[in-house]
Amino acid sequence: MPPANPAVDTAEVTALLERGRTLTTPVLKAAVDRLASPMDTVAAYHFGWIDALGNPADGDGGKAVRPALALLSAEAAGMPAETGVPGAVAVELVHNFSLLHDDLMDGDEQRRHRDTVWKVHGPAQAILVGDALFALANEVLLELGTVDAGRATRRLTTASRKLIDGQAQDISYEHRERVTVEECLAMEGNKTGALLACACSIGAVLGGVDERTADILESYGHHLGLAFQAVDDLLGIWGDPESTGKQTWSDLRQRKKSLPVVAALAAGGPASEKLGELLAADAKAPDFDAFSEEEFAMRAALIEEAGGREWTAQEARRQHAVAIEALGSVGMPERVRDQLTALADFVVVRRR
Amino acid sequence: MPPANPAVDTAEVTALLERGRTLTTPVLKAAVDRLASPMDTVAAYHFGWIDALGNPADGDGGKAVRPALALLSAEAAGMPAETGVPGAVAVELVHNFSLLHDDLMDGDEQRRHRDTVWKVHGPAQAILVGDALFALANEVLLELGTVDAGRATRRLTTASRKLIDGQAQDISYEHRERVTVEECLAMEGNKTGALLACACSIGAVLGGVDERTADILESYGHHLGLAFQAVDDLLGIWGDPESTGKQTWSDLRQRKKSLPVVAALAAGGPASEKLGELLAADAKAPDFDAFSEEEFAMRAALIEEAGGREWTAQEARRQHAVAIEALGSVGMPERVRDQLTALADFVVVRRR
Repeated sequence: MPPANPAVDTAEVTALLERGRTLTTPVLKAAVDRLASPMDTVAAYHFGWIDALGNPADGDGGKAVRPALALLSAEAAGMPAETGVPGAVAVELVHNFSLLHDDLMDGDEQRRHRDTVWKVHGPAQAILVGDALFALANEVLLELGTVDAGRATRRLTTASRKLIDGQAQDISYEHRERVTVEECLAMEGNKTGALLACACSIGAVLGGVDERTADILESYGHHLGLAFQAVDDLLGIWGDPESTGKQTWSDLRQRKKSLPVVAALAAGGPASEKLGELLAADAKAPDFDAFSEEEFAMRAALIEEAGGREWTAQEARRQHAVAIEALGSVGMPERVRDQLTALADFVVVRRR
Repeated sequence: MPPANPAVDTAEVTALLERGRTLTTPVLKAAVDRLASPMDTVAAYHFGWIDALGNPADGDGGKAVRPALALLSAEAAGMPAETGVPGAVAVELVHNFSLLHDDLMDGDEQRRHRDTVWKVHGPAQAILVGDALFALANEVLLELGTVDAGRATRRLTTASRKLIDGQAQDISYEHRERVTVEECLAMEGNKTGALLACACSIGAVLGGVDERTADILESYGHHLGLAFQAVDDLLGIWGDPESTGKQTWSDLRQRKKSLPVVAALAAGGPASEKLGELLAADAKAPDFDAFSEEEFAMRAALIEEAGGREWTAQEARRQHAVAIEALGSVGMPERVRDQLTALADFVVVRRR
């Protein structure tokens, strides 16, 4: 039996996320300031630093789990958290590059309670600024000029390639009638696992840790990423729009073959079969975009009845357990281990 | 007075371009093969290796000036041409990443005598495969695992950032009524000069050359890039579609503020003023997309009458001369110097 949801030390997690933001944001802002106009403004809007009219804002910049992990990664190597800052900034830049491009490709209109960049500034700016953030990520690391920075860049590049592979798989799955649970997990490992894995090793690599230790930290991050994505998949269907900043039934509206859907389809039984028939018809329905809330609620209920919701919740707990186990095989200060554990606990119980 | 167009040793240039293709293409293909499906297929179409139906093709893969330069760059450092191959592949990947994204942003429907990727495979694939090629460029270099590969990646990253800055400037200029010649040259230095500069140093850097020599080779490449772009701007208006693979009056159709246009507008006099009035009206013309060949031919004639064509041709020769001068201040085998000179000569007289 997988463990029940862990109790989370909320104050500890809040402090870790806050430290990540506090140490990372000034360096991130300085990097974004280097972009040619109007890309600097568009990026500042995306990060929530200004509103659509260009006025200063204190918008939602995301959960900032990755920066917090990158700083802890440096501490896991016995270095100060600050050693991880360029890594945290680079990972955050790659993450936001992918959000800018994915929102455009997926046609998503809302992100972090705001209109997405392509909606406000047009598709060309979403493409360009995404490209610029991707390039900036490598620049921020490589200008450190150290051998360890080269190692970190190589890991970040590998993670970025997997991230792109994952998005390609995700898009191609939307056009397919059936996707196996294994295919979905492989896609999510690429799309979410790879960059979270990199976040968990990059600080340590910048701190000079050996390749084996970096690999174990990546293993922790990879499974944490899979747990994170399983929870994201639950929130993509049953999340509260007030908390998530997305539309209701967001993933169903996009015909995402997310974990709850593929698990429900694979389960068999009456609800599973009914769901399969509905989704097959949806794929050809000319009025799909005009479906009512009730239509989506019905599909969500079938997914739940077929066991897709519970299976995904268990999968999150399974991956959480594997992540915690990986942590056990690398030496680090006990305080850091406790904090990495607290962040992992947070990932599986979060509501946004 | 700038020198007249140089006589080009066509056989020498053909052999250099051919060698670049022959040594680079297999490594490029192997890199592209790593992409997740269907990105590998989309990329193969873009490079002309398969047609839109997926059948093997021997399509136009571009002039391949950059790979030829990257290999000569290695030889300039006294190394075999093969040392430059990963650099040639990386530069070609970045170049093609930018083509994929730019064609989508600019709405260009034809490239290398074929429909562009976004036309055939849709915008999402153009974005994704562009991203993938960009990531792959860094991967190809960084997996060499040497300090020199790290240096090369840093230069490529700087060039990529400038390339993106240049595209941002180019797009923003299309929405402005007036752009100065200086702004246009700065944009072209970013958009074309930076990556050509990198092509001219990357082989030498992989061959272990010092930073000063690499900088001089970049200076040669930067000015060669400006000459290249000036010729491109001429071909963008007066080029033969049979040779260029683009539409007639291609840059005028896109309202590009290219060098001949901005030079004509800056020149003053009756033709310049008439052109200014027409272009200002064009910017608001609802039927602009339905303009006849004659409308564009008339604008092209005004640009020529105002001196924009001749100024741009002279600018190409000026930049060519500065590039050749830079070559003089770095020691290299005379044969290599002659070949770099021949390629520079080719760039200013080419018809495609």
